[in-house]
Amino acid sequence: MLFAIIMAGGSGTRFWPKSRRNRPKQLLNLHGDSTMLQQTVERIAPLVPAERVLIITGADQAEATRAQLPQLPTANVIAEPCPRDTAPCVGLAAEIVAAQDPDGTMIVMPADHVIGPIDVFLKTVEAAVAVIDADPSALVTFGIKPNRPETGYGYIERGELIETRDGVAVNRVVQFREKPDRETAEKFLASGSFAWNSGIFLWRARTILQEIRRHKPLLGVALDRVGEAWGTAAGPDVLAAEFPKMERTPIDKAVMEKAANVKVLEVTYDWNDVGDWRALRSLLPADEHGNAVQGDVIAIDTKDSILISDDGGLVATLGLDDVVVVQSGKATFVARRDHLDQLKALVESLDGRGYGAYL
Amino acid sequence: MLFAIIMAGGSGTRFWPKSRRNRPKQLLNLHGDSTMLQQTVERIAPLVPAERVLIITGADQAEATRAQLPQLPTANVIAEPCPRDTAPCVGLAAEIVAAQDPDGTMIVMPADHVIGPIDVFLKTVEAAVAVIDADPSALVTFGIKPNRPETGYGYIERGELIETRDGVAVNRVVQFREKPDRETAEKFLASGSFAWNSGIFLWRARTILQEIRRHKPLLGVALDRVGEAWGTAAGPDVLAAEFPKMERTPIDKAVMEKAANVKVLEVTYDWNDVGDWRALRSLLPADEHGNAVQGDVIAIDTKDSILISDDGGLVATLGLDDVVVVQSGKATFVARRDHLDQLKALVESLDGRGYGAYL
Repeated sequence: MLFAIIMAGGSGTRFWPKSRRNRPKQLLNLHGDSTMLQQTVERIAPLVPAERVLIITGADQAEATRAQLPQLPTANVIAEPCPRDTAPCVGLAAEIVAAQDPDGTMIVMPADHVIGPIDVFLKTVEAAVAVIDADPSALVTFGIKPNRPETGYGYIERGELIETRDGVAVNRVVQFREKPDRETAEKFLASGSFAWNSGIFLWRARTILQEIRRHKPLLGVALDRVGEAWGTAAGPDVLAAEFPKMERTPIDKAVMEKAANVKVLEVTYDWNDVGDWRALRSLLPADEHGNAVQGDVIAIDTKDSILISDDGGLVATLGLDDVVVVQSGKATFVARRDHLDQLKALVESLDGRGYGAYL
Repeated sequence: MLFAIIMAGGSGTRFWPKSRRNRPKQLLNLHGDSTMLQQTVERIAPLVPAERVLIITGADQAEATRAQLPQLPTANVIAEPCPRDTAPCVGLAAEIVAAQDPDGTMIVMPADHVIGPIDVFLKTVEAAVAVIDADPSALVTFGIKPNRPETGYGYIERGELIETRDGVAVNRVVQFREKPDRETAEKFLASGSFAWNSGIFLWRARTILQEIRRHKPLLGVALDRVGEAWGTAAGPDVLAAEFPKMERTPIDKAVMEKAANVKVLEVTYDWNDVGDWRALRSLLPADEHGNAVQGDVIAIDTKDSILISDDGGLVATLGLDDVVVVQSGKATFVARRDHLDQLKALVESLDGRGYGAYL
């Protein structure tokens, strides 16, 4: 059986002030009529019923997450006691899946990516399932064909073509590469053999647990303790005791870089990781002056800007060019677009400046 | 006896969104600890007790005006039934003053100017009173020495020096000039014989009423009808009936340009008419990057900007230069400073855009 694991953590800094500590990106309706979390669940629904969808989120966000997904059993929204990066998160989910179905397959997806068209995405997932059914010891990762020398993503070097499954190219993985510098990114792009690591993985729960035990034995032991207690009265206590002690490490580094049998599927759907406010330029419809607008906004002599008004407020602008304006609740953020990389630091400084109420 | 007439009308467009229809500029705390209206009353208080201060305001603003000036008798805040520019306003005040004291002198002041130091201002007022006491048929106007070729103000051409009264130069007025074009303003500045018309006047109530009757006889008749009924039960009804029929005209044009005996005092105090958000650059303390800041504001890599947060909100900026950001209530206004002249049109368009609630 196929299970869907949706990683819905995140600290909510890149979309401040709309995103807050208890309302991170995936819980926001940044474009369209539903939140990115809801879109992620809806996207996989034709292949995975609600009972087999697990959401891993933070304690601060569990309540809001459950409220957005009333179709899911309450227990399927699992709150991590503390952030421990993706290896413990994926391992915890694998324990839960394996307990329900020892042969269970799981797709791991971030909750905050925009993907379409859905039918192309679903065909890619079905191809990945077929790859795993034919080779249950493999780990499959979804690679995005780069269209620019992006320095903000990790890369996957593709090796030999293993097969074409349902029209999807399946290659062996030579290596994972962390975020490159610009020069390296340009080489990757020119070579044609690198893909962006989209953070979507598909594998048997059993296989990933074996790989974790092999490459991170302490983590494996701790996860197994949680897995054994899961579903019993002791489950929450064991999770609360074990999870904070687990190594804080991403699954890419903990396992994928070291595993022997990793395959990459070349993705042909559109993909946007909605990294910060700039991403809305391509996700929201633009007006005739290139402005991406949401909510009640009056833009006069304003172009190439991102203008957002939330909670029934009004944003009015005169003479702006390439500026981001976001009013949300009682906070207003205004930035030249080329300064957005500083937003994370700004948000992280709020507490120290005495503005913790805006986090 | 000296009476103070404070003209406190105004539509509240230049300081939107902090100024609104029922909360125009003079009712705002734009700088310092009190509103400009309160500062205007306090400034004249050493010479004029509260009982002899009259505020002429609009019907929309009378309640807020009274609330800001609890020391004034309620009846001293007079609501015009409709806007009719300054000639009917001044005439109405003169009728009320003349009814209380046939020899009463009145100083007419706008409620929305920043003036200091106060002792210099008061000495100038005392000099003007002395000029009128010596020559009761004169009209005195306060002229500001220009320091730039400003095209936004009216000018007064000074003629011969009549006297120096208490250290203040008193000149005959040759002519009043409406807002000039740039070239003319530069000539005015170079000539040294022009002053800005600050809108502060001082005269006997009886004299200005005589001048109105001479130059605007219909207006004079209507004002006298209101004056006769004032203080009787019929007063409000007569005001409501007569005022809307009065000619809409400024006192400068209706009387000052035509009167024979007009004198101008050269003002040596600092004067700022707080025309729009730009004026706060000189009224608010600037940070080390030239930003004028009020309320809770975080300004990173931001310079030469005006950043205002109202009502306990937070404004955070990144990478701005020469931008105005104002968050007030549920509205946010962001403009390049050189586009502020469009603000009035923007505010006037709110109703048509369906945002009348923000007026």
